[in-house]
Amino acid sequence: MKYGARNKLTAKVTSVKKGDVMALVKFQVIDPGEMASVLTTESVDDLGLKPGDEVQLFIKAIHVLPVKE
Amino acid sequence: MKYGARNKLTAKVTSVKKGDVMALVKFQVIDPGEMASVLTTESVDDLGLKPGDEVQLFIKAIHVLPVKE
Amino acid sequence: MKYGARNKLTAKVTSVKKGDVMALVKFQVIDPGEMASVLTTESVDDLGLKPGDEVQLFIKAIHVLPVKE
Amino acid sequence: MKYGARNKLTAKVTSVKKGDVMALVKFQVIDPGEMASVLTTESVDDLGLKPGDEVQLFIKAIHVLPVKE
Amino acid sequence: MKYGARNKLTAKVTSVKKGDVMALVKFQVIDPGEMASVLTTESVDDLGLKPGDEVQLFIKAIHVLPVKE
Amino acid sequence: MKYGARNKLTAKVTSVKKGDVMALVKFQVIDPGEMASVLTTESVDDLGLKPGDEVQLFIKAIHVLPVKE
Repeated sequence: MKYGARNKLTAKVTSVKKGDVMALVKFQVIDPGEMASVLTTESVDDLGLKPGDEVQLFIKAIHVLPVKE
Repeated sequence: MKYGARNKLTAKVTSVKKGDVMALVKFQVIDPGEMASVLTTESVDDLGLKPGDEVQLFIKAIHVLPVKE
Repeated sequence: MKYGARNKLTAKVTSVKKGDVMALVKFQVIDPGEMASVLTTESVDDLGLKPGDEVQLFIKAIHVLPVKE
Repeated sequence: MKYGARNKLTAKVTSVKKGDVMALVKFQVIDPGEMASVLTTESVDDLGLKPGDEVQLFIKAIHVLPVKE
Repeated sequence: MKYGARNKLTAKVTSVKKGDVMALVKFQVIDPGEMASVLTTESVDDLGLKPGDEVQLFIKAIHVLPVKE
Repeated sequence: MKYGARNKLTAKVTSVKKGDVMALVKFQVIDPGEMASVLTTESVDDLGLKPGDEVQLFIKAIHVLPVKE
C-alpha cells in the first residue's frame, strides 16, 4: 500500500481511553525516522528555517491517523 | 510555554524546499517519545485497538507545526 | 454562496449521535460527483498517481463540514 | 488493513496537476456510500441536524488522503 | 445558511498571492468577536486553562475556509 | 518563540467545558489583526477573490491551537 501522507511512524499502542463519541489513544514510537512539514514559504522565511536548526514539532492528536494490519 | 497539542517531537531540520507559496521542510526526529491520536470511539472499536498492538501512524505534512526558539 | 473548498457533496442525514462535547453525524451521499485532494508533489510521485488509477480516499470525520440551508 | 478514518471512498484519478511543492489531484467517485462528520454537539444543535435533513458537506482538498494498492 | 464550524469571522481581503497550485490570501478582520477551540481535556488540564487566562491562538492558514456571497 | 502558523490571535478565555475526552474552550479575541488562508488557486479563481472583497472566514474549533505562557 502507498499513502499520500509524508509522515509514517511505526508505534505500539500503550493506552486507549474511549469516550462517548471520541477516544484518545496513546502510542510509543518504535522507529522515529524522518518527519516532514508543509507550511507557507512565508513562515519558513519568518522562522529562518535552515538545515541543522533544532525545532519542536507540534501535531494535534486529531491529525494522527492510525492504520492496523 | 504550554501547548494545546498532545504531540511534541524534538527534531533537527535536514532539508528545506521553498516553492512559490508553500514549502516542504524535512526533519530528523531526535527524541521520538510518545504519540497520541484522537479518533472516533467507533474507529477504535473497528480497529480493535488495544495496548500492545503495533500500528502505523500517518500524518499529513500540512498538520505538522514547527516552532523555533 | 461560493466556498474556498474543492469538495462539495450533497447528502442526507441518516443518524446523529450527540456526546458531551462532540457529536458524530452520518450521511448518505446523494450525488457523489468529483473529489479533489491536495498533497505534496513528492507524494504524487511516490504513489505514481496517473489518470485511470483506482484509489481509496480516506477523510477523517473531523474534516467534514456540514452546511444547512 | 483497517483505518482510523470514518470516511472511505473508492475513486478513479481523472487529472493530476503537479506544482513545485504541492499537487492537485482530481477523482471521480465510484461508490459514494456513507459519509460521517464529527463536530461539536453545539454545532449540531445550532444547525438542528436530524435524520432526513439535506445538507452540503464541504471538505478542503488538503484533508483528502489517497491510498493506492 | 448554518455552518458546522464554531468560528466565523467577517473580514476584508487585503492581498492575494496565487501560486501554481496553492494560493495565500490575507484578510483584515472586521469584527473579531468570539473564538472557540476543541482540544483534549488532558490538554486543557495541562495548560490549566480557566476563564480570564490570556492565551495565543495559533491557526494554520490551510484551516481557514473563506466563503463569499 | 517563532511559529510555523500564519494566524496568531491574542485572546482571553471566557468559558471551559470539559468532556470525557474532548473539551470546548471559548475565547474573546483581544486584538484581531490580520488573518491568512491557504487554498487552491482554483478556489481563489472560483470565488474571484480580490482585495476589498468582504468574506466570511470559517474555522473548525479543532484547528485552533491555544498556547499559554
